[in-house]
Amino acid sequence: MFDYKLLSALAAVVEQAGFERAAQVLGLSQSAISQRIKLLEARVGQPVLVRATPPAPTEIGRRLLNHVQQVRLLERDLQSLVPALDEEGLPERLRIALNADSLATWWAAALGDFCARQHVLLDLVVEDQTVGLKRMRAGEVAACVCASERPVAGARSVLLGAMRYRALASPAFIARYFPDGVRADQLAHTPALVFGPDDFLQHRYLASLGVEGGFEHHLCPSSEGFIRLAEAGLGWGLVPELQVREQLAQGTLVNLLADKPIDVPLYWHHWRNGGQLLGALTEQLIRSSRQWLVPWAPS
Amino acid sequence: MFDYKLLSALAAVVEQAGFERAAQVLGLSQSAISQRIKLLEARVGQPVLVRATPPAPTEIGRRLLNHVQQVRLLERDLQSLVPALDEEGLPERLRIALNADSLATWWAAALGDFCARQHVLLDLVVEDQTVGLKRMRAGEVAACVCASERPVAGARSVLLGAMRYRALASPAFIARYFPDGVRADQLAHTPALVFGPDDFLQHRYLASLGVEGGFEHHLCPSSEGFIRLAEAGLGWGLVPELQVREQLAQGTLVNLLADKPIDVPLYWHHWRNGGQLLGALTEQLIRSSRQWLVPWAPS
Repeated sequence: MFDYKLLSALAAVVEQAGFERAAQVLGLSQSAISQRIKLLEARVGQPVLVRATPPAPTEIGRRLLNHVQQVRLLERDLQSLVPALDEEGLPERLRIALNADSLATWWAAALGDFCARQHVLLDLVVEDQTVGLKRMRAGEVAACVCASERPVAGARSVLLGAMRYRALASPAFIARYFPDGVRADQLAHTPALVFGPDDFLQHRYLASLGVEGGFEHHLCPSSEGFIRLAEAGLGWGLVPELQVREQLAQGTLVNLLADKPIDVPLYWHHWRNGGQLLGALTEQLIRSSRQWLVPWAPS
Repeated sequence: MFDYKLLSALAAVVEQAGFERAAQVLGLSQSAISQRIKLLEARVGQPVLVRATPPAPTEIGRRLLNHVQQVRLLERDLQSLVPALDEEGLPERLRIALNADSLATWWAAALGDFCARQHVLLDLVVEDQTVGLKRMRAGEVAACVCASERPVAGARSVLLGAMRYRALASPAFIARYFPDGVRADQLAHTPALVFGPDDFLQHRYLASLGVEGGFEHHLCPSSEGFIRLAEAGLGWGLVPELQVREQLAQGTLVNLLADKPIDVPLYWHHWRNGGQLLGALTEQLIRSSRQWLVPWAPS
């Protein structure tokens, strides 16, 4: 069998983003961690880590991490029978990538008391819904919420539903840029809000209105900040309906064009051999997420 | 003088996080961008970029970027006189690092109509308030909001005020973990919420209560997600008072211990030679941020 002392050291260095913190978490010296990584590399016959800040796994390092995560989840199923087997004695952690808008809206409520019941701690990683799968493929997370259906090797995906986005702006923004009424073809000439370089929702929305090409935009990688910027009149943007019920009711944000929402499907991807814990979490999410998400019919 | 065609290529590759997007933004082919970077490296005599995904500047690359940002801000002051000088014809962008909690609360409102008035677009970078200065030092941002007073070389810092945080949890969380009343010494044995590996606010709070050492925690790198997790009863956490007025009024979140807030000072750091634009933004922030921040007396 593999030497899991070495693999745990690798996992700790990547998860804790450094040798020092990995040493703290595992209760070892930094040089002990370094030696374990070197020994692992000697056995594997190639580097498992790129020594950058933070250290990043190599291709083979990622495959090893992926394996460690799956083994940990399987171990958990045994631990209730034989708790003494867990040498590290750390509480179980589940690393999950999800889009900021889910985290800002339905995610926590959908979990209910799952974490307390199962005594599990979450390491949440915020990733745009189009790139969360990269983290799955890299073996960095056990599960992710993302907009693509197609699972990576060794994983399953299940449709949870869709988030509904509306194009909104503040009344002051509309008064400044569209004194004579909002016109779709002029939308590209007013500042937009874009979450980050991987967010093409506004591009797709404009394209659906027949507007192609680039447009001026602020970059704001925060769901809540996005709404604050829209309310302050810095730009227009596509915002989850779930997140702005109050703003729409109070009129601090208003629909830009006639009622034209855009829906983004959300799939739950999880390791196939993820053990009972991931299975239970998957059931919990399927059951409860529909309260917040709208139905989605794959085209 | 330097060849700014080469430096613009470097800045675009780093700002756009890739050669392809840099080429799009500058209206050049990808190979033209590559050639410019190579030529720059030949002149400098060493690499300016680490060819990773995304590409990262080397030490010397960072210094060059820093210089480009300052030159751009100075150019802006001239552009109102001689607009034809700007060859790229791109709208002005200001890259600013700030903590997620500021972005989720007072930041946009404090800007007012600054961006529209000055026709400037923002590239916001979310960084924990303790590490935003790294971005300044690296020349990646023109300004940042952070908790340290001491400016980096070539920059100035000014105190804006402090954010007040309160230790909160949901009534269900308190009922589950503290049926007999909240005790500070037991707080470390209930799950906490921590923003990310650089967030030590909960650690400091526990230390101020006389509780040392580690504690169980979820990691949630999203301000809004943090509140959602707290409301859903996953953990207790320190939350900006500004962000939870409604939750406190409705009782979905309650103070954990007797009224014991913790204040975090926020300083505005900006390049000294940042031109009129940064100067005007600095004045705007000093004038308006005090509406949301509490006074802070440096110790």
